[in-house]
Amino acid sequence: MKLEIRETPIAVPGFLFAGVACGIKPSGKPDLALVVSDVPAAAAGVVTRNRVKAAPVRIVMERLGRGRAQAVVINSGNANACTGAAGMRVARAACAQVAAGLGIDARAVLPCATGKIGVVPPAVRMRTGVAAALDALDDSGFWRAARAIMTTDAFPKAGVRRVRVGGRIVTLAAMAKGAGMIAPDMATLLVAIATDAAIPAPALRTFVRAAVATSFNAITVDGDCSTNDTVLMLANGVAGNARFTPASADGRRFQRALSGLLGELADLVVADGEGATRRMRITVVGARTAADARRAARAIGESQLVKTALFGADPNWGRIACAAGYAGVPLDPDRLSVVIAGVAVLRCGAPAAPAVVARAARGMRAAAVELTVDLGTGGRGAAALTASDLTPAYVKFNSDYST
Amino acid sequence: MKLEIRETPIAVPGFLFAGVACGIKPSGKPDLALVVSDVPAAAAGVVTRNRVKAAPVRIVMERLGRGRAQAVVINSGNANACTGAAGMRVARAACAQVAAGLGIDARAVLPCATGKIGVVPPAVRMRTGVAAALDALDDSGFWRAARAIMTTDAFPKAGVRRVRVGGRIVTLAAMAKGAGMIAPDMATLLVAIATDAAIPAPALRTFVRAAVATSFNAITVDGDCSTNDTVLMLANGVAGNARFTPASADGRRFQRALSGLLGELADLVVADGEGATRRMRITVVGARTAADARRAARAIGESQLVKTALFGADPNWGRIACAAGYAGVPLDPDRLSVVIAGVAVLRCGAPAAPAVVARAARGMRAAAVELTVDLGTGGRGAAALTASDLTPAYVKFNSDYST
Repeated sequence: MKLEIRETPIAVPGFLFAGVACGIKPSGKPDLALVVSDVPAAAAGVVTRNRVKAAPVRIVMERLGRGRAQAVVINSGNANACTGAAGMRVARAACAQVAAGLGIDARAVLPCATGKIGVVPPAVRMRTGVAAALDALDDSGFWRAARAIMTTDAFPKAGVRRVRVGGRIVTLAAMAKGAGMIAPDMATLLVAIATDAAIPAPALRTFVRAAVATSFNAITVDGDCSTNDTVLMLANGVAGNARFTPASADGRRFQRALSGLLGELADLVVADGEGATRRMRITVVGARTAADARRAARAIGESQLVKTALFGADPNWGRIACAAGYAGVPLDPDRLSVVIAGVAVLRCGAPAAPAVVARAARGMRAAAVELTVDLGTGGRGAAALTASDLTPAYVKFNSDYST
Repeated sequence: MKLEIRETPIAVPGFLFAGVACGIKPSGKPDLALVVSDVPAAAAGVVTRNRVKAAPVRIVMERLGRGRAQAVVINSGNANACTGAAGMRVARAACAQVAAGLGIDARAVLPCATGKIGVVPPAVRMRTGVAAALDALDDSGFWRAARAIMTTDAFPKAGVRRVRVGGRIVTLAAMAKGAGMIAPDMATLLVAIATDAAIPAPALRTFVRAAVATSFNAITVDGDCSTNDTVLMLANGVAGNARFTPASADGRRFQRALSGLLGELADLVVADGEGATRRMRITVVGARTAADARRAARAIGESQLVKTALFGADPNWGRIACAAGYAGVPLDPDRLSVVIAGVAVLRCGAPAAPAVVARAARGMRAAAVELTVDLGTGGRGAAALTASDLTPAYVKFNSDYST
């Protein structure tokens, strides 16, 4: 999909950013980013559930437990996954160098990486890059950092929200790259979020998890969950707001802002999926439980046959019903309903007339298509997932010899 | 893949076959098949686990419990799925017509269907077709029946085995169509197996389930499990062999013959997968349990990134390790090994040198590629799965507007 986002300036009080090129990418494009808080910040995050975890992910898992951090160092062009002890050494060295440069504890530096699997990152280039990024740190460097974490992304993905909590206006800004594991040899969804709000780590964790559940955990490009997926959020408290809990009115407002911000980035990630021409928001209702609804939505969104039908703008409800049927969750075939682009093509197990289906076909030519599936169990379980289509361009892109 | 199979004559003592064209397919190609035993036969089978089951599948489920049947009636061109009460009536009518024509109980007739979902089969054409097929029944009609069950198959798939059990030489012959749910609006794997061996229904059930587990349940084209998948076997006892149990030497010989026969057909089904150019046999070892190994093999075989790499002959072990990592089963990243086409590209977590990987790339240019993944848990769980590649032709075929 062709998408442009306007790079309006983004700044977060008490944060500095940098994005530089240090030669990890053969193309010479920016490949090393820093996000640094002036003061120690509360930290929370989510990492991949893949059992094969990249070196930086293992370090993040060690350090996130502290609930505090001050910097995030991200390299693109090399995933530092399946790289053994050598990969761990390179990742730890980058963190130590950032810490020395800033005069902080190395444990306050969180590393991320994205790119080729199975190659130890070039240590000297990393070192040069970190030094250059430290020199380049700037409160207006946000978009440079957002560009430096890109791999095969067609455009940088970022957004910002301002919201009043605890008596102060606070800023939330986030940058993201990738869409699951969509690119050749490139893994990963990476997201870094900075806010000047004062939020204790346990509450920050609650906010981040809830926002990720409805955004990055509700999209699929190819169903491949990478070795490197990482979402990190730092809250440095520079805004000086009064404390607020997630359950308070301020907390709900903050959650809405964060969830909205990450939802916006997640949509951009799907829109930028490899070779994608069209995306579909799949809403499953009438499931016994929300977990059942999620499973059905995922089976539909990851079905190659549904994804190719989406590419072809074909309102092929038989494939949708079939995918729901093998999701392994209760459904009632005689009460199953499918609504595509506002047109009911299957209602309580009864197919619509060809003229009605033709209307759905016209609606499917849009860049974003709405699909609602009622599993007909009478339950109140519901879930939503946004999926991209499967195109010849995706296959071509991912089959070119690249090892 | 270009594959030719020679249509050497196949006959099974005490069985008649027919395949005719009755206009269910707009192309005018054969679309109605009959398999009939001269005498009542033991019957066993396996049907789809999809919760959305086609009308014929629901009837087969009702009738298979009896353990006896005498005829199978199969139409192609229409799946008779999501067709409600009207679809059930058409399917029951076809069975009743076959039963009347043969002078047997309607419950002894098992129906199957494959084709478009959501359209009630044309009752008059079905009736004409069943009448013509009854007239055409012939002990040399095997290949005509095998052709009449095809949908988008490039060639008919069938095979035969002869084996000595219970003091007699018995024949096993099988015909198959499709590969999971691979074709536009076409569902289904259908398999009909006929043998003149005398085998009681409970033993027949054991033989069929074991053979399906290592054949049709060990292949994947696109991971879509259809509304219509059905495997049926009739054993009419005409050979007059002495009884034998599955655990006996004769039983093991019969099992080997049946499993070999269905394995051969399963390979043909993958080779004929939509747009497939290459297939990969994935063997997972070193899992805690066989079930874990199966899950890992399936995650690898269904990964779009692994399938596109297979199309590109790219020994991209990072994608393979990644897919194993998100399969949700125990694995040890530091003891994970990947062998592609006989070349160890990852050994105990350590990547091979580029020259070695290049050798694996050359090996991947074959039509059939061997992949072995050791999950490194030290367990003895193992499983195998054969997967096709994902190609631009698959996407094109399945995205053409077809509703």
